Amino acid sequence: MQDTVLIVGAGPSGLSAADTVSKAGFKAVLVEKEEVLGGAPILSGYAKLVPSGEWAKDAIGRMVTRAEQDDNVTIHKSCKVGQLEGEAGNFTATLSNGEKVSASAVVLATGFTHFDSINKPEWGFGTYEDVLTTTQMEQMVASGKIACPSDGRVPERVAILLCVGSRDRQIGREWCSKICCTVSANLAMEVKEISPETDVFIYYMDIRTFGLYEDKFYWKSQEEFKTKFVKARIAEVTASGDGRLLVKGEDTLVKRPIIIPFDIVVHAIGMDPNEDNPEISKVFGIGLEKHGFIERAEHYTNTCGTTRKGIYAAGACYGPETIDDSISQGAAAGSRAVADLNALVRKAG
Amino acid sequence: MQDTVLIVGAGPSGLSAADTVSKAGFKAVLVEKEEVLGGAPILSGYAKLVPSGEWAKDAIGRMVTRAEQDDNVTIHKSCKVGQLEGEAGNFTATLSNGEKVSASAVVLATGFTHFDSINKPEWGFGTYEDVLTTTQMEQMVASGKIACPSDGRVPERVAILLCVGSRDRQIGREWCSKICCTVSANLAMEVKEISPETDVFIYYMDIRTFGLYEDKFYWKSQEEFKTKFVKARIAEVTASGDGRLLVKGEDTLVKRPIIIPFDIVVHAIGMDPNEDNPEISKVFGIGLEKHGFIERAEHYTNTCGTTRKGIYAAGACYGPETIDDSISQGAAAGSRAVADLNALVRKAG
Repeated sequence: MQDTVLIVGAGPSGLSAADTVSKAGFKAVLVEKEEVLGGAPILSGYAKLVPSGEWAKDAIGRMVTRAEQDDNVTIHKSCKVGQLEGEAGNFTATLSNGEKVSASAVVLATGFTHFDSINKPEWGFGTYEDVLTTTQMEQMVASGKIACPSDGRVPERVAILLCVGSRDRQIGREWCSKICCTVSANLAMEVKEISPETDVFIYYMDIRTFGLYEDKFYWKSQEEFKTKFVKARIAEVTASGDGRLLVKGEDTLVKRPIIIPFDIVVHAIGMDPNEDNPEISKVFGIGLEKHGFIERAEHYTNTCGTTRKGIYAAGACYGPETIDDSISQGAAAGSRAVADLNALVRKAG
Repeated sequence: MQDTVLIVGAGPSGLSAADTVSKAGFKAVLVEKEEVLGGAPILSGYAKLVPSGEWAKDAIGRMVTRAEQDDNVTIHKSCKVGQLEGEAGNFTATLSNGEKVSASAVVLATGFTHFDSINKPEWGFGTYEDVLTTTQMEQMVASGKIACPSDGRVPERVAILLCVGSRDRQIGREWCSKICCTVSANLAMEVKEISPETDVFIYYMDIRTFGLYEDKFYWKSQEEFKTKFVKARIAEVTASGDGRLLVKGEDTLVKRPIIIPFDIVVHAIGMDPNEDNPEISKVFGIGLEKHGFIERAEHYTNTCGTTRKGIYAAGACYGPETIDDSISQGAAAGSRAVADLNALVRKAG
């Protein structure tokens, strides 16, 4: 009798789906391509998560431990699904480690790929040591010390540039990455907490701290931590004569060119479709939407469905997503797979 | 043996939770205070939903029909929970219709209350007939004809004012309502489709069409439907001499006062905490966060939890939320309640 759901990806949404399947009384097989569970928050070494304020290693670590200690969850690390045969209710997956998994349904929790700042060369990443990405800056925050990579000095001024690899037609990223504004407002506060003498500027097009993030992150960052928000179009990041960085652009509120020297420039990098999506689309026989994220089914009565029956999805594989909603979507997709299993059980019984 | 989950509220999240519980093999009792199921999209007569483009009555109607035809779902309309006794695993709810429901867990899907524009009197609602809310304008779109309520003329210009009852400390609304920017960009396109001779202006602070809403709604509304987005602070809406409305404010990009005549002015009204939340908090013994929305538990391993064991929540009762994520959260909360039930079954077995 079929009693298993195959879950691909062990980030927040996949871990949540696995727990849902297990607690509904069925078995989950969790396949993760990396050696480590936890997804982007663990692999990229995020600092404190938005909006909880809890350290990523604790918050997501707890989800990892729960999966590892669950007898109903079988985990395959450093492993991919190479082939999927069969149909809804009776899939057989062949894993890259040679094992075969029989499953009634599949949950794709395959996440995203961080935008590679190398693709925005005029903003200095890869050219200047003191130009970092948000994930690198989060790692610096996690280390407890804010210092310029080039020479170890405490930065007098840090600039965070929003929408690097987002809302940018020139480089084929027409979407907004949803969470960078809030993450950056939070990051500015974390920098200031560790290094009170550092001033943080955030360059933005629109500040998108939606819902309850508005006062909790945007207002607080401005009012309590004195983060300076500058509405601007950035042209380029260059070196100054004295070993600092110059951020050049136009202040779109006063319509004047601005050139300000900074010690560290941070790229708030966006969320690209998972670079494996073309392969995932082929292996699982599912559609992608026009940007390359996984295509949703009608959402109202097929929550977290894809274009193929019996294959569900959750989290940032659908498009830029918060961790909290990735977790809810993981549970939702898991519960759909459980619904399919229960229908099979009833049919067989 | 306990086999029931009590679900309060029959909007998108409650309907989703009920389906999840039913398909997991248990029983759902759905209690709705209104006479009609479907929540805000049905009660307020929304037009086409974001982002699917499907009519609310069809999309949410399908969820309603599914619940009504489900033998595992018992529905109480025009009914509230008056009292809740017991504890996680064994609650007894007394309904306002006199019935008692025994349930292992509770899902609160109690939603929000639309901001009442009367509380922003300087923007003309309640004073001028041609000042409407987004829900009224959606009803006009659903009727298929765009006309000024005052005299039936086709409007030459429509203004949509964003953040009415959102991001406004003066009136105690410190949150962003998350979805009004996207709904308004969509509404502008719907108006233009029905009435091509009408020009639509959207007055904004920031445009928050996050994630995949960016090009699908913001760019498309601007580029294909010629919606004019004006970054401005609105001071007041008054009557002009010739029976039109004057929107007065400051264009914050050019830092100049602007006064433009409009035929219809639409308030993009925000999402307040459900006005019943103080009562809900008391009846169910759960905490509210500082704005008055339902307080979340730690989210990572207690998805959709509240401050009380065995009581879960989903959707806009937690804060402004999209319909899609309300549906996922409903499924997530339903699956947590199912997990509790399965644990009881195993314990008993």
